[in-house]
Order: sequence, then C-alpha cells, then structure tokens
Amino acid sequence: MGILIFVLYMIKVILLGAGNLAVHLAKAFSDAKNIDFVQRYSRDGKNDAFFDKTIPKTNKISALQKADIYVVSVSDQAIASFSKQFTFTTGLVVHTSGSMALQTLQCEANKGVLYPLQTFSKTKNVNFKTIPIAIETEHKKDFALLMQFTKEISDLVYKIDSLQREKMHIAAVFANNFSNQMFKIAKDICDENNFPFDILKPLIQETAKKIETLNPKQAQTGPAKRNDLKLIETHLKALKGEQKQIYALLSKSIMKTTI
Amino acid sequence: MGILIFVLYMIKVILLGAGNLAVHLAKAFSDAKNIDFVQRYSRDGKNDAFFDKTIPKTNKISALQKADIYVVSVSDQAIASFSKQFTFTTGLVVHTSGSMALQTLQCEANKGVLYPLQTFSKTKNVNFKTIPIAIETEHKKDFALLMQFTKEISDLVYKIDSLQREKMHIAAVFANNFSNQMFKIAKDICDENNFPFDILKPLIQETAKKIETLNPKQAQTGPAKRNDLKLIETHLKALKGEQKQIYALLSKSIMKTTI
Repeated sequence: MGILIFVLYMIKVILLGAGNLAVHLAKAFSDAKNIDFVQRYSRDGKNDAFFDKTIPKTNKISALQKADIYVVSVSDQAIASFSKQFTFTTGLVVHTSGSMALQTLQCEANKGVLYPLQTFSKTKNVNFKTIPIAIETEHKKDFALLMQFTKEISDLVYKIDSLQREKMHIAAVFANNFSNQMFKIAKDICDENNFPFDILKPLIQETAKKIETLNPKQAQTGPAKRNDLKLIETHLKALKGEQKQIYALLSKSIMKTTI
Repeated sequence: MGILIFVLYMIKVILLGAGNLAVHLAKAFSDAKNIDFVQRYSRDGKNDAFFDKTIPKTNKISALQKADIYVVSVSDQAIASFSKQFTFTTGLVVHTSGSMALQTLQCEANKGVLYPLQTFSKTKNVNFKTIPIAIETEHKKDFALLMQFTKEISDLVYKIDSLQREKMHIAAVFANNFSNQMFKIAKDICDENNFPFDILKPLIQETAKKIETLNPKQAQTGPAKRNDLKLIETHLKALKGEQKQIYALLSKSIMKTTI
C-alpha cells in the first residue's frame, strides 16, 4: 500500500514570477500528470494573458499556500531580495537561473536550482519534454524529490553543481547568443548587398543539423579550415570595422583548431 | 510541334571534378528528369566509390564528349589552369565556386557560374531540391539555359552577379563556419568542465529554428542583449586566452546592435 500511495502522490508546486521562462514553465506544470500546480505569484500581473486563468494567483507573499516546491523564476538580480521575504520554512525553494549560485537564494527553506537550458520567447511554443534541465540541491535528501519533479516536465534531466552550471551558461552564450550574432552579421551583409537572407537559411539549418551527428570540429569547413590565406585576405579586404575584426579573430581561431 | 520538342529536350551535362560537391551534384544530375548526364571527368579516380558506376568516366580532357553544359567542380585554385586546357568551343562552361569571379574560367566556350550555397560532407545525404543555387552567365543568351538546367536540380534558384556572390560567400562564412566555431568553443567548455555537449544540442537546434520566423536581431537574448555588464564581467573573469577575446568582442557587437 505504501508504494501505491507514493505513485498517486502529486507534487504540489507554486510558481513565482511571470517572465518568458515562467510562462513556459506554467504550461509544463499544467501539462504534467503528477504535478499539482496550486498557485502562482505575480507582483504586477505582467504577462497575465499568457497564463492559464484557472491557476489561483496572488500578488502577496504572505498569501502563498503550502507547497512541496516553490519555483522562483525572477530576474537574476531579484533572486536574493525576493527570496529574503519568504516567511515559510518548509518545502524546497529552487531558482531557475543559469548564472546564479544556489546560495543566491536567501530564504530559510531548503534550496535548490532547476535551470532549463533553452532560449524562450513568450509567443513561440516549445516542447518542454525535449529541453535539458540542470538540477542541484543544497541538501542530498531533497535531490530525489527535485529529480522526480523535474522528470515530470522533461525527459533530459542532468545533475549539475553550481560551478559547472556557471560554465554551462557561458557555453550556452557561445552556442546560442554568439552563433545568433553570426547570423545577424550574415543578414547585414545580405541587406547591404541586396540579396535575400532567405538564401542563407538552408545553410544555417544544415550547420545546426550537422552537429547532431558530427562534433563541431569535424563539421568545420570553409577558407580558415582549408588554411586558404589568399581567400581570407580577399574577404578581409572586402570587410571593415567590426565585421572585419570578427572575421579575423574567428578565422584565426579556426586555423588554430585545425593545426 | 516546336513546343513539344522543347519539352522533351534533355540537357546534356558533363561533370568535371570529384570532390564533396561533385559527389552530390552527380546524384542530383542522375535524379533529375530532364538532364542527360552523359559523362564525368576525374583526373585521379578520387572518390570513385561515391559515384554511380553507370555514368561514363574519363580522365582525359581530349576524350570529353559534346554537351550543353560542362560543370567544373574543382578547387578554387585549379579553376583557371584546368579550364585553360579545354579544346571545345561550344557549350556553356560553369564553375561552382562561391568565391571566384566568372572570369576565372579561361576557356573559349561561353562561361557561367552555378554556386550551391550549402555545406557538403561526402557521407551525409542532402536533398538538393532545397539548396539555394546562385547562377550567373557571361552572355545574356545563355541565362535561360542555365536557369532551366538549375531548376532541374533545385527549387531555389537565384540570379546573382559575381560581386554579390563574393559578398554572399562572406555572409556564408559567418552563417556557417563562424557559427560552427561557436559550437566548437561551447563543446570545449563542456569537455573542460565534465558535462556532456549533448546538453547544449537542443539549444543549438532552437537557435537555428528561431531565425526561420524571427530575424536574428529580434531573436537575440542573453547577457549582452540585456546589457548585463555585471554578468559579462563575471563570464570574462572565468575565461582566458582566445575564448575571452571572442567573448569580449562578440558581446560588444551584440550590445552595439541593441542600441
């Protein structure tokens, strides 16, 4: 009978915050079979339109109900001051930031981190099940609960400590923000020379697809990979300012990789 | 009757070269309904295993048959000296390079360019129909033939002159080689800190998918986009050498974009 009770147990969760990530987390909590999404907190009603209206909402910390897990999805800068106001001492409080240490949380209740490694836009639906989530708890005894909970929303759960998570966030800046900036500069060059950015889109999709089967070092091609100094020189002459600086630095980086 | 004859007309093509691109072009020529793939030229039999053995092969320029289009898919450096040896004077000769001007071809026959904008690996199949191809001819009268021919292998054909094509190739270096280098550095950081690169792959796929519906400037997120100087400083402190240099330069580039 003990096992039966465990299986039927719903994990009670409260979501605090209303940003891009909170919007998607709320959907994932509502969709999960064994999560009881009891309440959400929003200070100012921001993005209310994107949330399920049947989930009880409060804007008072004193009105927070009792839960097993409190998910704090606020801006990095607000985590400390916001969590300091919590009066409850039971349950597990987790923040969702890639760059803040677990200890940033200032509450009395036990602490943890649940960091989904993905880029979110409010208006673009994502399948949370395919999003890797890095989790960590301060106390070993809370880990099983956080693991069980996170598996309800994602199939890709990783145990990662705070130091690794900081490095992971830096890796994500390269993999996402910086690669996207390469696409942005490519589009600038298209615009400046009157041909459509659409012509580059299949190449961009293939670049991303390739790394599913090849590691990025093996997948590399192009003038720097071929050590084609003459072509690199021609390209540098055709560029100026920041585009030229970036072309030179990244070509050097690729040439060093090859050697 | 004239129209009927035109519709049934098969464009005779000879492929010269045996690199990655030539392997995929050969498949596309064989698959096309209205292309008569009459012969291929390979100097040294390189990659023979990747080609359809039923296509007649020669290693002598003097043994080349008569064709409507000769597709020269050799390395950039070899285009001039190789095409100089052609003794035929009829038909259209096109090279397939993104970075070489049309005039690089040194033959007497009419000249053109057919540049598929994609990254190719011999062992990874691609659907040529979805690959953008930039075409150009020296003489206006050859353009219709090259357009008709290229449409046989791709649904995305663009008229692009030599100057635009050079810029397009530079844009492709940013979109493909440089974004791939960002993935490579991200993987290095994973390896150095003992967590799997797999954790970043869904993020990379989403980064590429996003630009199908948002332009890269709108799609940008992260510390530099948010102008989060404190976090950028923390990340820079955690990095060194080339990784640090690239992080600084690209964060500056993103911050300038946002303003």
